[in-house]
Amino acid sequence: IISKLPQTPTTIFTVMSALANEVGAINLSQGFPDYECSPILTELVHKAMKDGFNQYAPMPGLLTLREQISHKTEKLYGAVYDPNTEVTITAGGTQAIFTAISAIIHPNDEVIIFEPAYDCYSPTIKLNGGIVKSLELHPPDYRIQWDMVKKLVSNKTRMIILNSPHNPTATILNEEDIKQLTDIVKNRDIIILSDEVYEHLVFDGNQHLSMARYPELQQRSFIVASFGKLFHTTGWKVGYCLAPAYLMQEFRKIHQFNVFSVNTPMQVAAAEYLKDEDSYLSLPDFFQQKRDYFREGLKQSRFDLLPCAGSYFQSVRYQNIADEKDSEFAIRVTKEIGVAAIPVSAFYSRGTDHQVLRFCFAKKQETLDKAIERLIKL
Amino acid sequence: IISKLPQTPTTIFTVMSALANEVGAINLSQGFPDYECSPILTELVHKAMKDGFNQYAPMPGLLTLREQISHKTEKLYGAVYDPNTEVTITAGGTQAIFTAISAIIHPNDEVIIFEPAYDCYSPTIKLNGGIVKSLELHPPDYRIQWDMVKKLVSNKTRMIILNSPHNPTATILNEEDIKQLTDIVKNRDIIILSDEVYEHLVFDGNQHLSMARYPELQQRSFIVASFGKLFHTTGWKVGYCLAPAYLMQEFRKIHQFNVFSVNTPMQVAAAEYLKDEDSYLSLPDFFQQKRDYFREGLKQSRFDLLPCAGSYFQSVRYQNIADEKDSEFAIRVTKEIGVAAIPVSAFYSRGTDHQVLRFCFAKKQETLDKAIERLIKL
Ligand SMILES: CSCCC(=O)C(=O)O
Ligand SMILES: CSCCC(=O)C(=O)O
Repeated sequence: IISKLPQTPTTIFTVMSALANEVGAINLSQGFPDYECSPILTELVHKAMKDGFNQYAPMPGLLTLREQISHKTEKLYGAVYDPNTEVTITAGGTQAIFTAISAIIHPNDEVIIFEPAYDCYSPTIKLNGGIVKSLELHPPDYRIQWDMVKKLVSNKTRMIILNSPHNPTATILNEEDIKQLTDIVKNRDIIILSDEVYEHLVFDGNQHLSMARYPELQQRSFIVASFGKLFHTTGWKVGYCLAPAYLMQEFRKIHQFNVFSVNTPMQVAAAEYLKDEDSYLSLPDFFQQKRDYFREGLKQSRFDLLPCAGSYFQSVRYQNIADEKDSEFAIRVTKEIGVAAIPVSAFYSRGTDHQVLRFCFAKKQETLDKAIERLIKL
Repeated sequence: IISKLPQTPTTIFTVMSALANEVGAINLSQGFPDYECSPILTELVHKAMKDGFNQYAPMPGLLTLREQISHKTEKLYGAVYDPNTEVTITAGGTQAIFTAISAIIHPNDEVIIFEPAYDCYSPTIKLNGGIVKSLELHPPDYRIQWDMVKKLVSNKTRMIILNSPHNPTATILNEEDIKQLTDIVKNRDIIILSDEVYEHLVFDGNQHLSMARYPELQQRSFIVASFGKLFHTTGWKVGYCLAPAYLMQEFRKIHQFNVFSVNTPMQVAAAEYLKDEDSYLSLPDFFQQKRDYFREGLKQSRFDLLPCAGSYFQSVRYQNIADEKDSEFAIRVTKEIGVAAIPVSAFYSRGTDHQVLRFCFAKKQETLDKAIERLIKL
C-alpha cells in the first residue's frame, strides 16, 4: 500500500513519554498536569452518568454547553457566537484543528504556518493535498517577521494558522501582530485557523488577543479551544471550535462523519462547571505561580531561560552545558538525569536545531522540586 | 469558500431525532438505547477519575484495554492481534471508519460500497478524492449479488466496505458471501473495511462471520467495533479498530493527528468491564428478546416486516398503508402517530425509495409497548 503520510514518524509526545516511562524519568515532555482535577468536576460526570446521560449527544454538542461557551466568549472577547450555528464541541483541540483544515483545504491550496509548530498542522494539510508554506521563527524572542509573511502570501494562500499563546515557544501575539495580520488578510480570501487552546494561560497581566476580539479577523476565523487545558483533564478529550456560520457549516459536514458527536457525560459536566467563572478566571494566577516557581528554580542551573509569556511550557537553551543536537540531548537528559523534555527541533519540519528544550510546568510542586533538583546538576 | 462536500445535508439521524424531540414523538429513529447502562460500568468510570486517570491516554489507547480486546478477538474468532501494533482505540466506530478510509484512499481510488449504507462511508471516500462505486441491494432480502460486484471491480479498486450485521437492513453475511468475497479480493490489492459494530447482535443461534475468522481476508482488513453498542453507552464514544500491523501503521499516522487519543477514564472502565465475558456474551439473547417482542407487536399492524437476522434495527414496508415516499411518510408518522423512524431511502446515494422505514428496537419494554400501540393504529 502507498502511504498517505510517508514521512510521518510517531509524534514526539509519544516517543518522549514512552521513554520517560521506560526509564522512570520525571515526565516534563508531553504537556499534561500530574495533579488532580477538581473533584467537583468528577462528581458532575458521575452525576451525569447516573442521571442517564450516556447516549449520543447532538452532533454539534450539547446545547447547554454551547450556550455556556457562547456566553463566556462574549463576556471575554465581545464576540457573539450563535450556539446553534457557530459553536461545535469536538473530541479535543486536535480534532477541531484536523476538521477545520479538512473542511477548507483543497488540493494545491497553500497554508502558511509558523515553526516551531504543534506537530499536527503540517500532516493534516498534506493529507488534504494542501501545500505547507512555513516560516521559521527563531529564539530568543520567536517574533513573527511580517514582511516575510507577506512574501509567502500568494493567490493560492487559503489559510494562515496561528497559535497564541504559542506551543512550544510560550510567546503571545501582540497588537502589532494583529495589525499586520489584518493588513495581510484584508481583501484576500484567506481563512484564519487560530489555535487558542492556551487562551487562559497568559501571564503578567497581559490580555489574550483572541481572533474573537477583532471583527475583521473573527469573521474569517476558526477558533479552537480545549477543556483539557481549562479543567486539567487532558484525557477527557473535550474541546470546541468557534466560527461564523458560513465556515461552521463546512466544519460540521466533516465533523459529523469524523466523530459524529463527543462524550456526553463529560459535556454535561463541563456545561455545569463553566457556570462558575472562577473555573477559568483563576487559571492565569495558578499557572503563573508555577511558571515563576519553575523559573526561579532553574536559575540555579546552567540553562538559559527563554521568555515565557503564556502556555504551560518553559523553554531553555543549553549552550553552556552541551554541544549535541537537542534530539540527542533530550534523550540523554531523560536517561542520565531523569527528566524528560521535548527537543524543540521536532517542531520544525526541516529539523532546525537551536538547541532548545521545552519543559511542561503544569506539575505539582513536588514534581517541579524534584525536576529542578536534577536539572541543576547538569 | 468552496465546499469540500457540496451535496452533503445534515445526517438523517440529526434530522429525525430533532423532529422527534420537537414534536415529542417516541424516537425509534437514531440507533441508541433508552435504558440505563450497567451501574457497574458507571462506577468503574467514577473510580477511574478518582484514581487520577484524567490525562492523555497513550495515542493507540490504554494497553490494558488493547490487551482485553486482543484476548476477546482471539477467543471469539481465532485471530491473534498484537495489542502493541494491531489494536487502536478510537473515539467511536465512526472515527475508526473515517480514519481507515483516510489512511488508504488516494485521489481516484475506487471504493465499492453496498447501499443502503451507513451515511458516513460515501462522504469520507469523496473527501479523500476517492470514487464511490455503489451497488444497490433490494428488499426483501437485500442479498449481495456477487456477479454484480465482480463487474464493479477494476484495477483502481482499492477498498470494499462491508457491514455485517448490516445497518439498516439487519442482514448478516453468510459463508457463501465470504467465499465470493475471498474469490474477488485474492490476487488483488484490495483492502477490506469491515464495519462490525453490531458484531454481538446476531440472532437465532447464528455466528457472526467476522473478517477475523478468515486469514486470507483478515490480513487485508480493517475491522471496526464499538463499545457504545456493546455496553449500551453510545454517548461515551469509545470504539476500536483492528488491523494487521502494515495497515495499522498507516491508520495510526492519521489517528494521531485527528484525535490523538481517546477518553481515558472510559477506557479504564471498559478494560475492567470486558474482563467479565458476560458483558458481551449476554447480548444476543438480550436483543433477540427485544426483536421478538417488537416483531410480535407489529404483527398486529398493517406493516410488512422484513427479516431481522442481526443489529438492533427492524425494517418494515408500508405498501398497505400509504403511497408516499418514505422520507415523507417518516415525517408524517412522526408528527401524526408520534413514532420517529429512519426512511431507508436516506441510505441510498441515489435516494432509491423502496418505501421502507427502519425502527430501532434497543428500547425498554414500555417504550416498545407505546410505539407498538401507536403504530398499529396506522
Ligand atoms: C496531544 S499530546 C501533546 C500535548 C501537548 O499539547 C504538548 O505537549 O504540546
Ligand atoms: C451516529 S448516530 C447514528 C446511530 C446509528 O448507528 C444509526 O442510527 O444508524
